[in-house]
Amino acid sequence: MKQAFEQQADAYRDQIERYLDRQCFQYPLEPQARLFEAMRYSLLAGGKRLRPVFVMDFCRMCGGDWKAAVPFGAALEMVHTYSLIHDDLPCMDNDDYRRGRLTNHKVYGEAMAVLAGDGLLTAAFGCLAQADFPAQARIQAVEILSRCSGCLGMIGGQVLDIQSEQRLCTEQEVLDIQSRKTGALIRAACQLGVVAGGGSKEQLQFAAEFAVHLGLAFQIRDDMLDRIGDAQTMGKATGMDGQKNTFVRLYGLERCDQLVRQHTQQAIMALKHFDCSEFMKALALELTNRKC
Amino acid sequence: MKQAFEQQADAYRDQIERYLDRQCFQYPLEPQARLFEAMRYSLLAGGKRLRPVFVMDFCRMCGGDWKAAVPFGAALEMVHTYSLIHDDLPCMDNDDYRRGRLTNHKVYGEAMAVLAGDGLLTAAFGCLAQADFPAQARIQAVEILSRCSGCLGMIGGQVLDIQSEQRLCTEQEVLDIQSRKTGALIRAACQLGVVAGGGSKEQLQFAAEFAVHLGLAFQIRDDMLDRIGDAQTMGKATGMDGQKNTFVRLYGLERCDQLVRQHTQQAIMALKHFDCSEFMKALALELTNRKC
Repeated sequence: MKQAFEQQADAYRDQIERYLDRQCFQYPLEPQARLFEAMRYSLLAGGKRLRPVFVMDFCRMCGGDWKAAVPFGAALEMVHTYSLIHDDLPCMDNDDYRRGRLTNHKVYGEAMAVLAGDGLLTAAFGCLAQADFPAQARIQAVEILSRCSGCLGMIGGQVLDIQSEQRLCTEQEVLDIQSRKTGALIRAACQLGVVAGGGSKEQLQFAAEFAVHLGLAFQIRDDMLDRIGDAQTMGKATGMDGQKNTFVRLYGLERCDQLVRQHTQQAIMALKHFDCSEFMKALALELTNRKC
Repeated sequence: MKQAFEQQADAYRDQIERYLDRQCFQYPLEPQARLFEAMRYSLLAGGKRLRPVFVMDFCRMCGGDWKAAVPFGAALEMVHTYSLIHDDLPCMDNDDYRRGRLTNHKVYGEAMAVLAGDGLLTAAFGCLAQADFPAQARIQAVEILSRCSGCLGMIGGQVLDIQSEQRLCTEQEVLDIQSRKTGALIRAACQLGVVAGGGSKEQLQFAAEFAVHLGLAFQIRDDMLDRIGDAQTMGKATGMDGQKNTFVRLYGLERCDQLVRQHTQQAIMALKHFDCSEFMKALALELTNRKC
């Protein structure tokens, strides 16, 4: 079982890495080579490729050909990466390091980092448009991605996060920030998978339900690891979020642990409306039980 | 004739202003109200709405209902506006004023300006997705907008522009910057109009031809006005581009004047493949003969 899981995860990641690499290396001789280099630097920096895996596996669980969903997965990863580049800028979180490497603007300068982010966001919609699906499915994907990553989704979440930095938030506000800032893109990923796989309207709804609970469990675990984690294991300074509005500050570690279990179970419950969901179930458990 | 032109122009602008206003005021009570305010500040700052007018009139010239093309026009205006917000940032051109008003980041801060730009770019694709056209037309619009505004189009042009600031460019380089930085979005506008109007493949090509020549004539006239214009008429400091790579530096004023006429004529020639092109012809002449 464990072996089958790893094999499937590797197959997904292999496909997405190849596709992303091709997308960002199409024009090495163009005069704007440095822009592509900056985009590659952040896009091909490793990472779990979680959102593309959600896209591809939800496609498969709806009976679709998951390899056809790779461009949809790439679009999600591009949007995720652009948001990290812009969030790291001096005028935002002003981070010098991410995943143990210098942030984009520290290597390429602020102007190029802004443009690399803009370029990735723009290219994401190009990936959706060029995927090998009927026009109706592609335009539905554009609509979902625009909504989830836009002003009422991810960007709105970043605004709320910035606005709340100087004060303690209520429980509802912390939930709202999580649901927009990180939750919305996970929702987009799961729903794009359903669209790619030709799933039903009901499955689109259950994918969102899965995403809401998994996203919440994931974020709560993240906050817990930040508190208890070890600096070396995490590859970044821990305890930095101490002043911020985290679930641990809100609920305490013990209650957080309970909530992670509850939401993981609710996420897994939503999977019963899909076929062959063993992989996604195992992934959900792995993500929410992780130690780093 | 003059009166009919003004009436049509007013009708176009009236529709686009209403639509843009609605798009950015849907959620006044949301906690991220300040983000919408920042978006509105730049999006509803007036301006010629040139790109939306191109969209709507090319739609009409292809026999389509131009009012249905308003969301496509709005998408172009959103992309244009986001590019101005990001270009004005301190890490880019570092401009304090645009069209006589403080730039976005001077009013809302840099973080909000970056996010307002991101929000407008994301919303642009949402506008295309939600327009009342068959899915095939909408996805073709997404594909065109992503390509023209992306790394090989507008964003690439901005990169080239930044890279060339400290040195004198060749003629080919100046042409390349113009064709990408401003030309690509005008091309997208004309082509989106053809898509909206259900035009032929050939018309898509002729729309691009019109856009290339008109964009060039427009930019050369812009460089000329910058040299000879009067500070008060233009509403901005003139002569600021003196050190930069302008067509005036390259060709001199007299040759520039010839080139504007030539390219305007070539643009007008491309219009013979469209019906009822009097409006667009008049617009092309107005734009390239303008005194401010």
